[in-house]
Amino acid sequence: MDALRGACIIGQSGGPTSVINASAYGVIRTALDNPNITRVLGAAHGIKGVLNDELYDMALEDASELELLMHTPSSALGSCRYKLKDSSVDDSDYRRILEIFKKYNVRYFFYNGGNDSMDTCNKISKYMLQVGYECKIMGVPKTVDNDLWGTDHCPGFPSAAKYVATSIMELYHDARVYDTPMVCIVEIMGRHAGWLAGSAAIATYLGQGPDLIYLPEVAFDINKFLSDVERLYYDTGKVLVAVSEGIHDESGKLIAEYGAENAPVDSFGHKQLGGLASTLVNMVKNRMGSIKIRGIELSLLQRCAAHCASETDIAESFMAGKAAVDLATCGVTDKMVGFERTYDKLGNYVCNIKLMDLEKVANAEKKVPREWINAEGNGLTQDYLDYVLPLISGTPKLTYENGMPRFAKLKKILAKK
Amino acid sequence: MDALRGACIIGQSGGPTSVINASAYGVIRTALDNPNITRVLGAAHGIKGVLNDELYDMALEDASELELLMHTPSSALGSCRYKLKDSSVDDSDYRRILEIFKKYNVRYFFYNGGNDSMDTCNKISKYMLQVGYECKIMGVPKTVDNDLWGTDHCPGFPSAAKYVATSIMELYHDARVYDTPMVCIVEIMGRHAGWLAGSAAIATYLGQGPDLIYLPEVAFDINKFLSDVERLYYDTGKVLVAVSEGIHDESGKLIAEYGAENAPVDSFGHKQLGGLASTLVNMVKNRMGSIKIRGIELSLLQRCAAHCASETDIAESFMAGKAAVDLATCGVTDKMVGFERTYDKLGNYVCNIKLMDLEKVANAEKKVPREWINAEGNGLTQDYLDYVLPLISGTPKLTYENGMPRFAKLKKILAKK
Repeated sequence: MDALRGACIIGQSGGPTSVINASAYGVIRTALDNPNITRVLGAAHGIKGVLNDELYDMALEDASELELLMHTPSSALGSCRYKLKDSSVDDSDYRRILEIFKKYNVRYFFYNGGNDSMDTCNKISKYMLQVGYECKIMGVPKTVDNDLWGTDHCPGFPSAAKYVATSIMELYHDARVYDTPMVCIVEIMGRHAGWLAGSAAIATYLGQGPDLIYLPEVAFDINKFLSDVERLYYDTGKVLVAVSEGIHDESGKLIAEYGAENAPVDSFGHKQLGGLASTLVNMVKNRMGSIKIRGIELSLLQRCAAHCASETDIAESFMAGKAAVDLATCGVTDKMVGFERTYDKLGNYVCNIKLMDLEKVANAEKKVPREWINAEGNGLTQDYLDYVLPLISGTPKLTYENGMPRFAKLKKILAKK
Repeated sequence: MDALRGACIIGQSGGPTSVINASAYGVIRTALDNPNITRVLGAAHGIKGVLNDELYDMALEDASELELLMHTPSSALGSCRYKLKDSSVDDSDYRRILEIFKKYNVRYFFYNGGNDSMDTCNKISKYMLQVGYECKIMGVPKTVDNDLWGTDHCPGFPSAAKYVATSIMELYHDARVYDTPMVCIVEIMGRHAGWLAGSAAIATYLGQGPDLIYLPEVAFDINKFLSDVERLYYDTGKVLVAVSEGIHDESGKLIAEYGAENAPVDSFGHKQLGGLASTLVNMVKNRMGSIKIRGIELSLLQRCAAHCASETDIAESFMAGKAAVDLATCGVTDKMVGFERTYDKLGNYVCNIKLMDLEKVANAEKKVPREWINAEGNGLTQDYLDYVLPLISGTPKLTYENGMPRFAKLKKILAKK
């Protein structure tokens, strides 16, 4: 059978990571070099770029700039959070996508994102199968949340984990520099899954990390938390806490909402800003009085810190993108590329490609196993450490200019029709 | 004349930096190797360690762990914020310090810190001169604020500047990933001087930085700020703002206090937390309605990010500590080690040691020259860039273990009397 010949589209969607562009580069470089792919088109802002007929011609980019994508944070092609309706309810978007696919003779579609993006990818794949338009459709995973089903881990998570663990280890040293007592609460991303907040345990494992770590996988007991903080404060004088933004009480109510609820309106007519960290800070103050306490939100920093990425993650992210193209041009479709972990004879970590049905990935979420969290629900076990440590190894060799990382500058020239 | 023989004390004080330990190592290593220094004592928590007779015997530390101080953030010996009274008012602390100096035959005293620490150092120096106790006393500078008088720049500032510029450049990419408009306001340390917030201009210079940068050197005009944000928002859809925590209005009132004043008390009985970033966020919302806007406080992260230090800064920090010991053992006293910048024949930046009177350093503060800030007061000029760029060059070669930086672990064995 002859290989399918035609153009490909690569799109990025959802919250960016510091290595999602390494996956995009894996797709773009491999596709540019593949004789069956006649044209490589980058969708501006994910699926919206397809709907708007805004497609960049990736062959017109300088090869050296494209290569810098390996170390450039955020989604270089632009991202979106656009949800496709079910085609049975409203198929106008799908008909438009098909129209664009036909216009450019698109026979390969690669979508680089997390859960919602895999949902988009799955819906497009199913629609094309249904209408009988031949197009190989592959999902390329990314998410700092690490919550995609069926894969050992997700590109983007290891680098964010490395940044969180490194930053919190540095904070550990800074926060305890005076001989006066203090509490410091660090808020980490993760709405439903605590994989990323869990990475703070790496610093604890190295003897320089949080005393308490809370994930959304275990219902958060406010009184237990306050007692733990109080006990540590009076025992040791120093309390460092890492907490997932998504922690909630037994009833499922977000702890962050406790603050929002009570937050009164300021003179501008707005509720005072204040995320989970400041809510917890206020709870501790309420219990313990006016102690020295600080809340720190790692915010966007944790998902774009390319300067502190994991080399393992970068290499694997590229590999995922490359595998998507290699496999699609061999006829594979309707799958997401995932990872399977093995260990070689010397016990060294090895990461292999595996394939998962888009259908399954689109509708599932992977959480930290309860048994990887300690019995008290305020720390991680050795199982989690064994899982995460191989992923954060290796320091990337960034290109520097003026003492600063040199990131890719794409020309983004729109493809001719 | 024979060189003075005796023990030395090294103390660290004030807010830590990511490279203050490189200076401490410069002192400790050089002192351990100097035949006229009979004993190297590390004061626990700065001058408080002297007052409390809590001195570590640095010779009992492993040489390899000491060397790791080159890349270990925060103050490894512990810090303090202890202000000595004037000896004319109350000389009890001074008499105690003299007692300890005599007890250990301390003939060299090195104090590693910022403005307040130089004040401490100066007071001790003057007291020892007054009572005729021979002791060579030297200040070794550090401060991320870069506001010490008379020196071209301060150890600690370049690394913090590199972290701020790098992080904000990464944020630039992340914050504009969607095709929807947004405002992002980043709060940077600096109460009185805007050197550090100014470093955000490095990212702007590279085409990937804030649109607006505000320093405390120029009175902050709230209406002008809101107009600038609004104009950029509607012109470009993306507004990135960097702001020094110390910005104030024409009357000198801190802008952060506008928020605190209006912040009502929550149900716990506490004012809702909210620094300058959230105050500005609320002001913008009040003007522009419910737009997508985010405030990010770099908080402690910016002063302890050893993983993103400037190699130039590390080398110079070590050099400052080493010079303090070398010069003191040559008879110099009552001085702070500072830097003087020259350029070689090829135009390359060169950093030389200079000496300043402790008296002068203790009572002055260096601000960003008005002419290095643009006329509108919302950006930096090329002069600032020419000043800062040579300082952030070079990436340090950290030791890694388990994918994480390996920081020094000191034994901190108390010195025998």
